[in-house]
Amino acid sequence: MSLVGSGGRRPIYLDCDTGIDDSIALAYLLASPEVELVGIGTVSGNVSAARAARNTLDLLHLAGRDDVPVAIGAQDFLAGSFDGGVPWIHGHNGVGDVMLPAAPREPDRRDAADLLRDLAHEHGGALSIVTVGPTTNIATALAREPGLPGLIRSVTTMGGAALAPGNISAVAEANIGNDPEAAAALLDAGWDCTLVPLDVTLENRLFERDCAALLDAPTALVRALGAMLDIYFDYYVPLYGERSCALHDPMAAAIAVGEVRSRRAPAVEIVVDTTRGPGRGQTICDLRGQRLGPVDQPGARTRVVLELDRPLGPHLVERLTRFDAPEAVR
Amino acid sequence: MSLVGSGGRRPIYLDCDTGIDDSIALAYLLASPEVELVGIGTVSGNVSAARAARNTLDLLHLAGRDDVPVAIGAQDFLAGSFDGGVPWIHGHNGVGDVMLPAAPREPDRRDAADLLRDLAHEHGGALSIVTVGPTTNIATALAREPGLPGLIRSVTTMGGAALAPGNISAVAEANIGNDPEAAAALLDAGWDCTLVPLDVTLENRLFERDCAALLDAPTALVRALGAMLDIYFDYYVPLYGERSCALHDPMAAAIAVGEVRSRRAPAVEIVVDTTRGPGRGQTICDLRGQRLGPVDQPGARTRVVLELDRPLGPHLVERLTRFDAPEAVR
Repeated sequence: MSLVGSGGRRPIYLDCDTGIDDSIALAYLLASPEVELVGIGTVSGNVSAARAARNTLDLLHLAGRDDVPVAIGAQDFLAGSFDGGVPWIHGHNGVGDVMLPAAPREPDRRDAADLLRDLAHEHGGALSIVTVGPTTNIATALAREPGLPGLIRSVTTMGGAALAPGNISAVAEANIGNDPEAAAALLDAGWDCTLVPLDVTLENRLFERDCAALLDAPTALVRALGAMLDIYFDYYVPLYGERSCALHDPMAAAIAVGEVRSRRAPAVEIVVDTTRGPGRGQTICDLRGQRLGPVDQPGARTRVVLELDRPLGPHLVERLTRFDAPEAVR
Repeated sequence: MSLVGSGGRRPIYLDCDTGIDDSIALAYLLASPEVELVGIGTVSGNVSAARAARNTLDLLHLAGRDDVPVAIGAQDFLAGSFDGGVPWIHGHNGVGDVMLPAAPREPDRRDAADLLRDLAHEHGGALSIVTVGPTTNIATALAREPGLPGLIRSVTTMGGAALAPGNISAVAEANIGNDPEAAAALLDAGWDCTLVPLDVTLENRLFERDCAALLDAPTALVRALGAMLDIYFDYYVPLYGERSCALHDPMAAAIAVGEVRSRRAPAVEIVVDTTRGPGRGQTICDLRGQRLGPVDQPGARTRVVLELDRPLGPHLVERLTRFDAPEAVR
């Protein structure tokens, strides 16, 4: 059992539906010396869980990290079927229709929930979880291993909308809205959790100049990210009025790493709407009483990030463009 | 049949649960030369419907307006019972425990829904409805008279929360949350409606200097409003950090009169959560796609007020302190 990863780096399990912004989050974690990515589980969302695993393996291969286990997780959600994803946002292959070189290996033989459980035991108490897709695998792991929260250091979840509008309904964000029951299981598990909602992810962006910087990076992985942004930027034109993109998943990664901190993130009661009504999938955050400043509600274990200490974009681009691991493909 | 009230003033039916801010809204309407208050229905909410009628009669008497019919409406809500109101906000009698001189008359023999229906026919197409309590009476009138929307010029409703937190739950505002089914009936009726939610009413306040101005007014009615504010100001100290009060109901009155206008009030799809889940009573306003500026959604008939053209407080105080009808009690 190791309390931290190699070289004192904090071990992280990433759960993702890779995805363009998932790819950026993954690369950011690989580029961050503070943490060690010790395992990845995939889930359906932006693409199928199987496609997400393929993308993840290929991205890791470009980074020279064929050592990181990648396990396929849930194809379907706890109370619903995967609907085919969002090719109009992330491209048909999930990575902006960029053709990545195929990794020479297959996914782990375990499923994502079992990989998470094994890693939690292996790193006994030191493992942090970062989720950037529906949290189906986490709910499954909690069902299989009720003692899981006691083995986990922290959970950072990209998802939900506190006071901002949703993105798949008026009030629901995609990760939570795809599997509200799984989100409820995660938020009710009794561990320290940080929810990273649309309220902040939509306010942090990458722009054309950032894309150009990524396309000029020394490593093939980061140049591939730059190439993926082409289709992703198009999607956001109606929202922002210009080519750019929100930083959903990379923000959860950066907050988990600790290089971007919350200026305002009160611990409040959060209930996921699991009805079949018009609010299904909403993360109902009780933000009454926050007018005079952030107030933690007694007993609340989940912090909802409402404001950062600095913009994420510049930090993200700097870290990615400096990424130059010896084993990475040039 | 008269298309407008006497002297060309637009006829208004007010539905209220009188209440301190209801009292201010009522006085504002009486003080507004643009409109004529032709009838009032009461509903349970801040106090019982019967108590609200008593308060309303007494307030009208102070204004020398014993001619305005006041009809008692729903004691209970469409799908729930009145729970006794909020004496810790509005005082035990609903008007801040201020003892008003008793009016020498009784409520109308009709109930509120019948009064509304009769007035709608009488003013054929010219009547505007202002609601500042639960909308139970309006739902009842719609059920009794399905043609009602064709007889009504416009509806202005104080209630709901769009992007702001709720006040009786994390997402529900009191008027809508007390009777979500009635709010759904009102919003689905197919008439032109303006929803005045907490997003704006909490941002407009009265302060100590305003209270002092009301206490110094020439009419007993307005001085009584000033006296009511004492207990009301106390209630808001934890929210605002100082003695002051939100302007919920007066804002709906001022918008209906037209003297305060919306700077940002897009017509959007609004669905009331009528489930028994955690979002019950939420006014789910679809505010996606509003980032680049207000956009009306095709087919939407309800405008949600998100920003005013000027602060309400100064206008309200000016109009109230100038109120000096010859028939009013000094």
